[in-house]
Amino acid sequence: MDYFNIATNEGIATMTLSRGKVNAFNEDMVEQIHSNLEKLENDEKVKAVILTGRGKFFSFGFDIPEFLSYSKDSFIGYLTKFANLYTYLFIYPKPTVVALNGHAIAGGAMLSLACDHRIMVGGKAKISLNEITFGASVFAGCVEMLKLATGFNNAQKILYSGAMFTAEEARQLGFIDQVSSDTQLLDDAGKIALGLAGKDQTAFKSIKGLLRNPISEKMMERERASVLEFADIWYTESTWSNLQGIKIHT
Amino acid sequence: MDYFNIATNEGIATMTLSRGKVNAFNEDMVEQIHSNLEKLENDEKVKAVILTGRGKFFSFGFDIPEFLSYSKDSFIGYLTKFANLYTYLFIYPKPTVVALNGHAIAGGAMLSLACDHRIMVGGKAKISLNEITFGASVFAGCVEMLKLATGFNNAQKILYSGAMFTAEEARQLGFIDQVSSDTQLLDDAGKIALGLAGKDQTAFKSIKGLLRNPISEKMMERERASVLEFADIWYTESTWSNLQGIKIHT
Amino acid sequence: MDYFNIATNEGIATMTLSRGKVNAFNEDMVEQIHSNLEKLENDEKVKAVILTGRGKFFSFGFDIPEFLSYSKDSFIGYLTKFANLYTYLFIYPKPTVVALNGHAIAGGAMLSLACDHRIMVGGKAKISLNEITFGASVFAGCVEMLKLATGFNNAQKILYSGAMFTAEEARQLGFIDQVSSDTQLLDDAGKIALGLAGKDQTAFKSIKGLLRNPISEKMMERERASVLEFADIWYTESTWSNLQGIKIHT
Repeated sequence: MDYFNIATNEGIATMTLSRGKVNAFNEDMVEQIHSNLEKLENDEKVKAVILTGRGKFFSFGFDIPEFLSYSKDSFIGYLTKFANLYTYLFIYPKPTVVALNGHAIAGGAMLSLACDHRIMVGGKAKISLNEITFGASVFAGCVEMLKLATGFNNAQKILYSGAMFTAEEARQLGFIDQVSSDTQLLDDAGKIALGLAGKDQTAFKSIKGLLRNPISEKMMERERASVLEFADIWYTESTWSNLQGIKIHT
Repeated sequence: MDYFNIATNEGIATMTLSRGKVNAFNEDMVEQIHSNLEKLENDEKVKAVILTGRGKFFSFGFDIPEFLSYSKDSFIGYLTKFANLYTYLFIYPKPTVVALNGHAIAGGAMLSLACDHRIMVGGKAKISLNEITFGASVFAGCVEMLKLATGFNNAQKILYSGAMFTAEEARQLGFIDQVSSDTQLLDDAGKIALGLAGKDQTAFKSIKGLLRNPISEKMMERERASVLEFADIWYTESTWSNLQGIKIHT
Repeated sequence: MDYFNIATNEGIATMTLSRGKVNAFNEDMVEQIHSNLEKLENDEKVKAVILTGRGKFFSFGFDIPEFLSYSKDSFIGYLTKFANLYTYLFIYPKPTVVALNGHAIAGGAMLSLACDHRIMVGGKAKISLNEITFGASVFAGCVEMLKLATGFNNAQKILYSGAMFTAEEARQLGFIDQVSSDTQLLDDAGKIALGLAGKDQTAFKSIKGLLRNPISEKMMERERASVLEFADIWYTESTWSNLQGIKIHT
């Protein structure tokens, strides 16, 4: 497993993304995150999960250079896996905390939105759904999660602008829940995770389902059409040309 | 009628819960509140309804010791009546104001969420959906009402923590609308009720329906499954053990 | 075309309502706004649309004296056209900015709610959904748009009170997005419009659809019943009597 490591302490499993310098998602990584989250779900000793990243990025989002070699059908296959991953995480029966150690861009921000609590380092790190700036769309499920977190007006502002937000700006928008610092991030995330892990697990799972199942059902209804539309736009000439200009430091 | 009294003044009917020291709900009380609200609905002289309580509690919620003697089927019957009560109140065609004279816990907070306006005394009184702290779940309809009032992030915070909130904290979360004082509470509630009672009743009823019917339909779709899940969790060994430790001063 | 003029500059089409002193909507005007928005949608040179008004009103709302001569069936026909107009505008594929140059009352406020961005002059201008004050209802779609913009609690406050809000009050409620001044309004609106017009149009259209299509579908499901209920209330004796007292300075 090259793409992340998992350490468990006091019932809290911390999954740290570590792929290259920016933790960009490729298909293998998405599959492995999904299957390892399933293992943690089924591991009775694990009471809560923290997601974080190594280095200056939580995640850059999709590994665009790698996907440029994909056929459209293969890319749709990948997109479906990615959407399934965040939908699964959104209704994960155990508490989830994302500790944004650095930039959370595009797909990186989407994955964050699925967690129960988002905590982010202050300073230079940015969070953004910047797809519109390179001519890409987003996904139906991601938009629903964003609207939940920020309300409709702020969701529009975030998606229409594609702007990069600091932790403090993101907190004011509802995009994240809490601002921390480099040195405190994992401690702060651990406190939240331990607090949630200490609740009755059956009650937590039931209440989380009541909060989230009606929304996940709405997300899934529209996801297939949205993935196809995303792919259609991805392969338009102008967007394709933008994508070819994007470099990733690996 | 032992469980509350009703006084009508200038077209405003004030229903004051008064059962023991903490106004805990039992099955009789829920039935009587429901049938008396129906009478007030059909009484042309009544233009608006205020709900309040006697003593230091608006309501403790369910009378847990009494329900421990119920069979599961009987308890499901009660839960269904309780959910029907708040759903009915949520779309009540006349204006409703809840004047929280003291603590509003669990079922007490749920009933409050159904009203058009929530006003609460400052000071020591607390409002809480604390079910998770003793291993119980909540209801689908209650979660929808809470999400409406507070937004998703705050609804999660309230339900995952089970914390007790002062009136001022609750107002900042959107859990209540207005903070008052012991001496001003009923006057303040009366002003709101009179203001709403002075509107064209047909227009009010229509507008309230436009605001609330789409939500009440969503509430009802999921309520049966949620009541059954609530009962399943109630009768698990660990939750049952917690419930046996709960005393009520009557 | 007597009811507005359209000027296009740098790809931004500005449609200025100008009918009498208060830009009240009649059936012709609603039809013409709709068909001209369609022309702008199909005009490749137009990248974004600004809606504004001439004089001290953005719009007074419906031209009530004119509609008093309508049969109920004809009035239902008009209401349907009006609801279709704001629903069409709500999912308009190009960016839309409304620059509220003055009062935006009832139908004037409804049309504003359909736009991507609402900017309003400070000072004496007011925005209001004041239907309840003369015994009228509103429309299902309008309520959904309002709930999106302001959240449920504020939507209730706005609709139950029928109050007139200044730009600053409206901004705090989420009813509008930005406060400007008489002299800056069109410049400020132009900046927003140019910013949105500069985005990739295909991506913008897709993202706007993901944000708004699930809501427009909900709006349309209930609109027919709501239009009929609106008309029923309009023709009740007490509301009709109120309507006859309403004068418009033309």
